[in-house]
Amino acid sequence: MTDLTSSLAAFATGPISATAQARVVTSLSALDWLAVGRAGVEEAVSRIVRQMVLAESGAAQARLFGGGAAPLRGAALVNGTVSHALDYDDTHFAHIGHPSVAVFPAALALAEWEDRPLVDLLEAALVGMEVSVRIGLWLGRGHYQAGFHQTATAGAFGAAAAAGRLMGFDTAQMRDLLGLTATRASGQKAQFGTMGKPYNAGLAASNGVEAAQLVRNGFRPNADAIEGPHGFGATHLGANDTASALDGLGDEWLFESVSHKFHACCHGLHAALEAARDLDIAEPEVAEIKVKTHPRWMSVCNQLHPTSGLGAKFSYRTVIAMQAMGYDTALPGSYSDKVCADPRLQSLRDRITVEEDQSLTETQAFLSLLRRDGARLEASHDLLTPMSLPDREDRVRDKAAKLIGGDEADAIWSMLRTGGRAADLAERLSD
Amino acid sequence: MTDLTSSLAAFATGPISATAQARVVTSLSALDWLAVGRAGVEEAVSRIVRQMVLAESGAAQARLFGGGAAPLRGAALVNGTVSHALDYDDTHFAHIGHPSVAVFPAALALAEWEDRPLVDLLEAALVGMEVSVRIGLWLGRGHYQAGFHQTATAGAFGAAAAAGRLMGFDTAQMRDLLGLTATRASGQKAQFGTMGKPYNAGLAASNGVEAAQLVRNGFRPNADAIEGPHGFGATHLGANDTASALDGLGDEWLFESVSHKFHACCHGLHAALEAARDLDIAEPEVAEIKVKTHPRWMSVCNQLHPTSGLGAKFSYRTVIAMQAMGYDTALPGSYSDKVCADPRLQSLRDRITVEEDQSLTETQAFLSLLRRDGARLEASHDLLTPMSLPDREDRVRDKAAKLIGGDEADAIWSMLRTGGRAADLAERLSD
Repeated sequence: MTDLTSSLAAFATGPISATAQARVVTSLSALDWLAVGRAGVEEAVSRIVRQMVLAESGAAQARLFGGGAAPLRGAALVNGTVSHALDYDDTHFAHIGHPSVAVFPAALALAEWEDRPLVDLLEAALVGMEVSVRIGLWLGRGHYQAGFHQTATAGAFGAAAAAGRLMGFDTAQMRDLLGLTATRASGQKAQFGTMGKPYNAGLAASNGVEAAQLVRNGFRPNADAIEGPHGFGATHLGANDTASALDGLGDEWLFESVSHKFHACCHGLHAALEAARDLDIAEPEVAEIKVKTHPRWMSVCNQLHPTSGLGAKFSYRTVIAMQAMGYDTALPGSYSDKVCADPRLQSLRDRITVEEDQSLTETQAFLSLLRRDGARLEASHDLLTPMSLPDREDRVRDKAAKLIGGDEADAIWSMLRTGGRAADLAERLSD
Repeated sequence: MTDLTSSLAAFATGPISATAQARVVTSLSALDWLAVGRAGVEEAVSRIVRQMVLAESGAAQARLFGGGAAPLRGAALVNGTVSHALDYDDTHFAHIGHPSVAVFPAALALAEWEDRPLVDLLEAALVGMEVSVRIGLWLGRGHYQAGFHQTATAGAFGAAAAAGRLMGFDTAQMRDLLGLTATRASGQKAQFGTMGKPYNAGLAASNGVEAAQLVRNGFRPNADAIEGPHGFGATHLGANDTASALDGLGDEWLFESVSHKFHACCHGLHAALEAARDLDIAEPEVAEIKVKTHPRWMSVCNQLHPTSGLGAKFSYRTVIAMQAMGYDTALPGSYSDKVCADPRLQSLRDRITVEEDQSLTETQAFLSLLRRDGARLEASHDLLTPMSLPDREDRVRDKAAKLIGGDEADAIWSMLRTGGRAADLAERLSD
């Protein structure tokens, strides 16, 4: 099969045989998505997008993070934006994007409105996320480096595929859906660092839902608008490597290798925090800590003396000092102006140095700890190292418990693993 | 001024001194837009997009072509799509797009909802269309040739500017608005020939409205996302010629040179039909007609023996024969399967030949008529030839009268020229 759209359409509409691992990871991503969305609802961008959609007073078809409900397109826009507001959701390095925030809002809105069982929602989300990863791969790194935000562009196709699957589309309709999405998908990397970044995730989700609704109503677009002449790949500077993008499709689930974030700060800091976690550093013992990281991060998240909570999220020295002092780096609220002003933290921070190391990749970090007793301990971490499924489950559930409370996280996890209706999950979008 | 966004934001928010010509042309475009929208409401794409938006049961903020009302974003999506459904709306060759179908739906929805006077609507629409032409110029022909549909891409910025002006934005807000639109704007040329083309116009209108609502709610995007690093110009293969795009801004109204379509068929046929109009051909006298046209059109609209109404819209021989026989080429309903099957028309058609001529531009055509009495008459036409304002008014009003009835066209024209409320105009979106 060399036709990208036809192959993805056949995959997205046919029966699937997902690995147990893919299914568990999907459920973990659902829990993680729901927890970070609930934690992000008070962010300014969440309030602003919610306000616009709620002011439209549309039919209560699908629930929103933060309460209330809206028509499908509006719910997808809100929930995509809110769940990416903290930038604390899952990441897929091959996709070069955040699959859950584009796909779950679309799939859940549809599945709730059509009162589908949770198992259908999870399967559609898995298929949609796999499509978004495959299209992300097809677009490639050049697309991202040129300035397109794959979460939004590749994500829209994933959201569409999930929605179309829940609508029971046949292959021809799915082809139309993917082709129509090609004229709607957008999202710039130039918005990074602004409210535009989370909004881009909302765009992906709502663009996919809108296209699916139109195709269901009989819309006939150019179904060849992704890889055809003047198609999305050509105009959006895609690598268009169809063979790689389709490799193993249906047998191998690229989505499985999605990464969950366990620290509520810049992704560039995570490998160092994981290495620090392995060292189990306790502040009073620290004589000196050396951090080595990929050169790219030096200009991104090496603020030396941040004074604000936001600054702390982009500072190796601060987050490692926080962790050594027992602050929970998984909690967004831990990163505060007050923490930055703490003299004890500042003293520890001054014992930490950061340097670049060309031999490390972007997902690796190395830590060297000199203890006051003279012992030197070293650890390194690579975010791409696969985590065992039980470890991953522990950590995602633990993160969710911190964000929304242990009972709530347990109840949702149990629901995700034992079944129920999609509407039951949608009820958990607000407390 | 070399900063595109700042210059356009200052222009779009400040007092304007429009020429009388620009104001009259804006009113003519409003009438033309309204007439072609009403005529397009029965098209399949119109029905499909209306159905989706009406099913959302949102607040009745702005009226729709075909009746009913919807929230602003939904109304803009519907009215943009419907008014471009027949591809019979105005065209601007420097913009390389259709300004009215992107801007009027956005401006009218806002102005109706805020109960603004018509004069404010028309001024905002003029400013928005001028912005869309300027951004279209800035993106340039390469952007279009690569596969982007300027009606949708440049159009979204125009729709946004019109909406932001009606919201009373200051320059900083307008900069934010243009920057936010950059992450939302989309639309492919690959959709030409499908329902995706008119939908793209709806996207432009609704994207502009959505961005304006968000900025009004306090959304802070990257305001430098059009011409800045990784901005819309860079990612969307723009020429980024800021000096040309801003040349004369505020003094000179590029929008004035917009073209109105007077024949309900492919634009490539219009110059020949206008030349034929000058010859005043009457069928019984015709021995032979030779048409010369730019080579580009030979593969676009030179169907020799079409058998359907749709085919007739892409056939030099058929439309010229129709005109000579007294069919009104301004009426979409004139192009029918029945006409194609008429033996008298087929006989005349066989006396018409079409050939390419490298010396003609895309907007030019040449006709040579040999009458049965031996006389040879010749005429040529260039669509870029400026039409006197009274001529243009006559023809636009005549076209509107054909599409929606003379009394209705006169009443709307009188309203546009003498004032009233935007809501009065919105009431005319359906009969």
